[in-house]
Amino acid sequence: MQKYTIAVLVNNQSGVLNRVSGMFRRRGFNINSLTVSETESEQFSRITVTYEATPEMNHQIVTQLYKLPDVIKVKELTRDDSVNCELMLIKVKNDAATREEIRTAADAFKAETVDYTRESVIMRITGDSKRIDAFINLMKEFEILEICRTGIVSLERGSKTIAQYED
Amino acid sequence: MQKYTIAVLVNNQSGVLNRVSGMFRRRGFNINSLTVSETESEQFSRITVTYEATPEMNHQIVTQLYKLPDVIKVKELTRDDSVNCELMLIKVKNDAATREEIRTAADAFKAETVDYTRESVIMRITGDSKRIDAFINLMKEFEILEICRTGIVSLERGSKTIAQYED
Repeated sequence: MQKYTIAVLVNNQSGVLNRVSGMFRRRGFNINSLTVSETESEQFSRITVTYEATPEMNHQIVTQLYKLPDVIKVKELTRDDSVNCELMLIKVKNDAATREEIRTAADAFKAETVDYTRESVIMRITGDSKRIDAFINLMKEFEILEICRTGIVSLERGSKTIAQYED
Repeated sequence: MQKYTIAVLVNNQSGVLNRVSGMFRRRGFNINSLTVSETESEQFSRITVTYEATPEMNHQIVTQLYKLPDVIKVKELTRDDSVNCELMLIKVKNDAATREEIRTAADAFKAETVDYTRESVIMRITGDSKRIDAFINLMKEFEILEICRTGIVSLERGSKTIAQYED
């Protein structure tokens, strides 16, 4: 099993997200993250999905996606040829004993404080998934109250766009 | 019609995303953005959905979500009581005539350059949706090649968590 990230260009139609997530469910594929995004055109949406699969399973996923109505393009994005990133909001318990340590860790990761009370602090951090996982691990030492991650978004490096690929 | 953001705490089960998106589809509600996120617990996922609705429609959406299996909590997050943000990757055409202007605009918005070739530049920007919309508008003057946005993630300010709310 390895990690895959695919971008799916779809017609901006109600129901297409449901079809895409339904295909994963029916085939028993587990999604790690999924984002639905507006694009440069009102006509299209872009769904970014990450999952773990064997190369054979991945081939099957791409083939099945192309069979769905309103799916226009499916493009696998690899770590080397694309820019990947993710955003996380994390709420951690704040008290006099840990305040200083949390601040030092946040500074090291360039995490921004976006809410601060005597009992809690919310930080915002951006980066690839490994960086975000590392920050979560660090925060486990304190008390994590709540986490919300966006899931991965990804664009191919260089000037080519997903719409330019041949089927 | 007004904008709503809700956080839906669900059991981390294959199929629950499909049920949530299916409820929106069947009732004809259009989703503006949706993110599925890991949380502080492996047991749960967190789905953040934004949409436009009347207060009556919104009430209906929340009621219907609670009827779905594996939906644990639904919490409306308002602009005043929560921290909202979003991440965007944007690929813009790069040429000698516009290079300087793009850089100036990016600096003003603290957008980070994450890929750079002679023909294209990818920038990464974080903030609330209005800020991101404003940057897109500015980039329309040049040539936008590709956009990928994460959709909104949102956490309530202060130390309370979604799991602590009574049904």
